[in-house]
Amino acid sequence: MRERLRKAAAGATEGDVEALIVAPSSDLVYLTGYDPMPFERPTLLIVRPDRDPVLLVPELERPLAAASPAGELAELRGWRDAEDPYAAAAELLPAGGTVAVTDRIWGLHVLRLQDAAPTLAWISASAVLGPLRARKDPIELDALRRAGAAADATFEEITRLPFAGRTELEVADDLKRLLVEHGHASADFAIVASGPNAASPHHEPGERRIGPGDVVVLDFGGELDGYYSDMTRTVVVGEPPEGFGTVYGTVHAAQEAAVDEVRPGVPIQEIDRVARAVITESGFGERFVHRTGHGIGLEVHEPPYAVEGDETILEAGMTFSVEPGIYLPERFGVRIEDIVAVTHDGFERLNTSTRELRTVA
Amino acid sequence: MRERLRKAAAGATEGDVEALIVAPSSDLVYLTGYDPMPFERPTLLIVRPDRDPVLLVPELERPLAAASPAGELAELRGWRDAEDPYAAAAELLPAGGTVAVTDRIWGLHVLRLQDAAPTLAWISASAVLGPLRARKDPIELDALRRAGAAADATFEEITRLPFAGRTELEVADDLKRLLVEHGHASADFAIVASGPNAASPHHEPGERRIGPGDVVVLDFGGELDGYYSDMTRTVVVGEPPEGFGTVYGTVHAAQEAAVDEVRPGVPIQEIDRVARAVITESGFGERFVHRTGHGIGLEVHEPPYAVEGDETILEAGMTFSVEPGIYLPERFGVRIEDIVAVTHDGFERLNTSTRELRTVA
Repeated sequence: MRERLRKAAAGATEGDVEALIVAPSSDLVYLTGYDPMPFERPTLLIVRPDRDPVLLVPELERPLAAASPAGELAELRGWRDAEDPYAAAAELLPAGGTVAVTDRIWGLHVLRLQDAAPTLAWISASAVLGPLRARKDPIELDALRRAGAAADATFEEITRLPFAGRTELEVADDLKRLLVEHGHASADFAIVASGPNAASPHHEPGERRIGPGDVVVLDFGGELDGYYSDMTRTVVVGEPPEGFGTVYGTVHAAQEAAVDEVRPGVPIQEIDRVARAVITESGFGERFVHRTGHGIGLEVHEPPYAVEGDETILEAGMTFSVEPGIYLPERFGVRIEDIVAVTHDGFERLNTSTRELRTVA
Repeated sequence: MRERLRKAAAGATEGDVEALIVAPSSDLVYLTGYDPMPFERPTLLIVRPDRDPVLLVPELERPLAAASPAGELAELRGWRDAEDPYAAAAELLPAGGTVAVTDRIWGLHVLRLQDAAPTLAWISASAVLGPLRARKDPIELDALRRAGAAADATFEEITRLPFAGRTELEVADDLKRLLVEHGHASADFAIVASGPNAASPHHEPGERRIGPGDVVVLDFGGELDGYYSDMTRTVVVGEPPEGFGTVYGTVHAAQEAAVDEVRPGVPIQEIDRVARAVITESGFGERFVHRTGHGIGLEVHEPPYAVEGDETILEAGMTFSVEPGIYLPERFGVRIEDIVAVTHDGFERLNTSTRELRTVA
């Protein structure tokens, strides 16, 4: 972590950033191992080139911070309720130039910091921390690999359970249970979108009872040793509806083509272009309503993104989802998602479950 | 909700705020009943006086939003990945003046919105929504009352279980289980801080095994019908340590005195002053390291705050915690917390468990 803090400070210097302001989030975990709840009382790690890091903490959380690895890595300064923590932060910030703040810091804290230090320019800390966090080290890759394997095992097992006659919520509860049984510390999401609901990419599972002929999108994941899994498969209960075969085949082909493109040196937006080209050629371009993927690590979604406009160049150690989809309102939807890691000469899939259509009971 | 949206728009006008920018959070739930996950893809409700509300949603979540009450209350506008949602938001904002944003919106979104609409002044939406949300209606009060009763029942039951010989984590797991058994939809926190750990107000329960003579602070709560419970009691395993009686008595007296002060017309900071005066007179002022309380409702912590500097005047329907504490490093700590509701002529405690010292086994 000391090395990560050093690299963060160096990255700031390189990016002409005078200071990093890191709030409770995966940024703080990444840099210090300290993971308190984000609250209305700000906890702020100030990282500056050539200075020791300072962690401003609410006085009542000082013992918590001191007992965490952050207690060794940063100078702790407590502030008490009724004192002004933003003024205390401003004293640690430069008089001018640019500072970078954690993406997920509460907006309230940004506004108060801006009031306390009105002469500064403010940017997202991802400009500095994104590239560092995007390249996973071997320990991180191992955690992501194990999370992926646990998600694969979850998929294998859920497809052996009955779908017809059960509600989306019941299947979602099974997915969450299986994620934990297979080694996740927590099951964080389990989309079960059946029949017409499968046309809603972020559908919230409900009381709809799954029946014969339903297409079911399963999108689930959780956290294992701090790192996330996230995989999607689309299954069908018995005989698929009309037109399904073409759509499934198109998404499948798009996913294969996009993954095959993954290697160092390729811009991540190219992965999106490849998937989109396959789907557009099949005439479904308008129904592929989202980007092709997102980085994954300490967060389920983190930079870089496989989307037009993200100019990140792939490097070994980067991990992200490849998840094209086609959604036909009131009919069905299809999405297939694997996590891939960029290797020195290509890619490694962290999910290895079959992408061939699986029929469930 | 239509009425809440109307009041929010009226509150904006009154506060010289040209628009409210509401992100996924309890603000959005309060105004529209829509509760999506906050993500790097912004979902933004724009509320302007004399205009219909507009909800900007990621295209892939449009079906989710349309199926929620927000689908009826606001005009939905989808944006696609690779489009610029901040520019779309800026088009709905005025050319000048002040806009107010949700406290918990991601800082990233605030910075991007500021880039897209650089001529505006930005304040916290709590300036407008805080006073509305602080005064609970009878349905909200009923939910808070039931959450409080479920927390009371949890306390009664946990004190009948053995403490000595078990770890903090084991007791915390029991607290969480009991919160759900007594009607909470989820158990959100359970601090079990034993022995010297009790001197850390936000201690994270760990593997420490509780033993005879330990003081144990129990601070727990969860969500029930969207509203939170939050209560704290301090118990002792057998014979208390030396000096404990005075400290417990002081915190108990401070809590009684502060609650007795609650009625319409009193500034909430006065509640803090009353509790602090009792503790300071006993010589422990320096060891009362936090404010006396926080508002509670759709969030565990929400405005107003019982802290010096919060000038909110209490009104009927406001609900907040009263939770003085004294923390003696390396020895023990004591905190007693109830939720109170302001009534037309005084207060109602939403927690009614005994505040007399309880000894556990």
